[in-house]
Amino acid sequence: MKMTVYVRNVPIGGDFPVTVQSMTNTMTVDTVSTIAQVNGLHAAGAAMVRVSVPDFDSVKTIKELAKGNVPIIADIHFDYKLALAAINSGVDKIRINPSNLSKQGISEVVKACRDRNIPIRVGVNKGSVKNNDFSAANMAALAIESASLIEEEGYNNIVLAVKSSDIRTTVEAYRILDKLCDYPLHIGLTEAGTKQSGIIKSSVAIGSLLLDGIGNTVRVSLAADPIEEVYAAKTILRAAGLDKNFVEIIACPTCARTCIAVEELATRLEERVKNVTVPMKIAVMGCIVNGIGESKGARLGVAGGKSVSSVFLDGKVIKTVKNELIIDEIMRITEELLK
Amino acid sequence: MKMTVYVRNVPIGGDFPVTVQSMTNTMTVDTVSTIAQVNGLHAAGAAMVRVSVPDFDSVKTIKELAKGNVPIIADIHFDYKLALAAINSGVDKIRINPSNLSKQGISEVVKACRDRNIPIRVGVNKGSVKNNDFSAANMAALAIESASLIEEEGYNNIVLAVKSSDIRTTVEAYRILDKLCDYPLHIGLTEAGTKQSGIIKSSVAIGSLLLDGIGNTVRVSLAADPIEEVYAAKTILRAAGLDKNFVEIIACPTCARTCIAVEELATRLEERVKNVTVPMKIAVMGCIVNGIGESKGARLGVAGGKSVSSVFLDGKVIKTVKNELIIDEIMRITEELLK
Repeated sequence: MKMTVYVRNVPIGGDFPVTVQSMTNTMTVDTVSTIAQVNGLHAAGAAMVRVSVPDFDSVKTIKELAKGNVPIIADIHFDYKLALAAINSGVDKIRINPSNLSKQGISEVVKACRDRNIPIRVGVNKGSVKNNDFSAANMAALAIESASLIEEEGYNNIVLAVKSSDIRTTVEAYRILDKLCDYPLHIGLTEAGTKQSGIIKSSVAIGSLLLDGIGNTVRVSLAADPIEEVYAAKTILRAAGLDKNFVEIIACPTCARTCIAVEELATRLEERVKNVTVPMKIAVMGCIVNGIGESKGARLGVAGGKSVSSVFLDGKVIKTVKNELIIDEIMRITEELLK
Repeated sequence: MKMTVYVRNVPIGGDFPVTVQSMTNTMTVDTVSTIAQVNGLHAAGAAMVRVSVPDFDSVKTIKELAKGNVPIIADIHFDYKLALAAINSGVDKIRINPSNLSKQGISEVVKACRDRNIPIRVGVNKGSVKNNDFSAANMAALAIESASLIEEEGYNNIVLAVKSSDIRTTVEAYRILDKLCDYPLHIGLTEAGTKQSGIIKSSVAIGSLLLDGIGNTVRVSLAADPIEEVYAAKTILRAAGLDKNFVEIIACPTCARTCIAVEELATRLEERVKNVTVPMKIAVMGCIVNGIGESKGARLGVAGGKSVSSVFLDGKVIKTVKNELIIDEIMRITEELLK
């Protein structure tokens, strides 16, 4: 089992649930916009939010954020004094890439983190590789080596990440890294791209790791509004069975057998329940082929028939409803169940 | 290695590339709409298309489809005589679920398939389970048992599938099944739901199997226009590294360091290259942190700077461009590269 570290009051590692995180894309120096985005990401489901600190003018925003309700991670590159300023401003974790800091800089940063007992996330990626060996094994070894720079300073409050924009390299590197250390792992695919393809690429990479029990905190990286990263990460966690507190909508893909408006009903249900955090399953099935089995296994289910459809509650048919009335009826029963 | 079967001229199994397939959701009896949808799915990238045959009136459409350019799979439930009619109409493969056919029916179907040497896809799912044991191991065993019903008739031109709407069960069942047989595997997550969440769920399930080398043909099942299934399946194959003939857009997720309009440029590029089947990588990076490394690794790359951005071609900076002109310049160079 992995060690547990705490980002303010939020645990990462051990037996604790895998957390979702995201990162702001406002100019950090713009305090109002950055605070608004941090709060929006938190409300959407990010347990913690990372903020880039590219210059000393941005530190004033970091100070304000540190007073707020959301655990904040400062993202630092090149200048260790920015890290010291962020740490002294009260952030809850910092992220560094040791390959772009001096040994002296790392030593100062570790000392400051130890004084406040905040975790350091060591994020290694392709750019960290010096010897042109971009293999998964080398990436994982580099992460371990980077962690050792911190251990040498007598500190082990560490989260590790080893991201590549190549999915196979990323998955393989994490599989190796998982076996090599007890540090909790921050997982994700870096530079996944646009919302459309980036969500699929991230789901393949992150999902396959989570299914095998690898990963303690997740970030989806999209060239899109970061709120989309949070929604995608939450859905990936749910897909991997790691968050059961939601209403799962099972829906058939429709075919020539379909007797009811499956897509419309499923989409309306999904919209209705998107903020509900009670575990429940609703099955929307267009015909009886798999309709009866799936409906029986759900809290609420519908299996389309030629002119009337069967409505299932807790595995039993409670009524049949004319197909033209089925959407309204299922929406009505859903409202009752959600009460 | 898996056996190879042929759906008309398209191989499934062996060393052959993993194929994408989809399924019509028109009323099959509506010949014009069904032919149009089959052709649209094929043009979008489906190597073969499945069509439900719910009644004898639909067989006339199957006859027409069988004369076309697209390999056709007939989906049959309950009535083996529908299968016989479809086989005699010239379809290239049939899909049955032995749990809803009689032993006599299966025997007749196998005989007809053998006469035309077309493969049978045995699709087992939750509804096929008789003893309430929905475990992955039992599902996999059921698939093997179903295949043995066909083997007993002296035929082994078989593709196997074992789908559940639960992702962990699906992945685990396929992992077990993969070890138990040499039949090529049709993989997918059944009843994945709406486009929004169904794509993520399917990517996690199918992607993690493909990354481990499991699966010979893929279907994504969405309660949406089936063309979305084809796009999603193609992107999953590309994510898993199984289709390299496309232009990959690497794009950073943007943060306070970002100097250029990454999302806009990445989205415009993705739209421009969506039908290009030449392997190429383009990196759109908002700053120098990972921008230089990723740009160097791409055919074309851009790393944003404070007022000017560096343009990389084949790993070398070829020019710097003012940030307000960078989108036009990258689009222009892309056009040249695509010539």
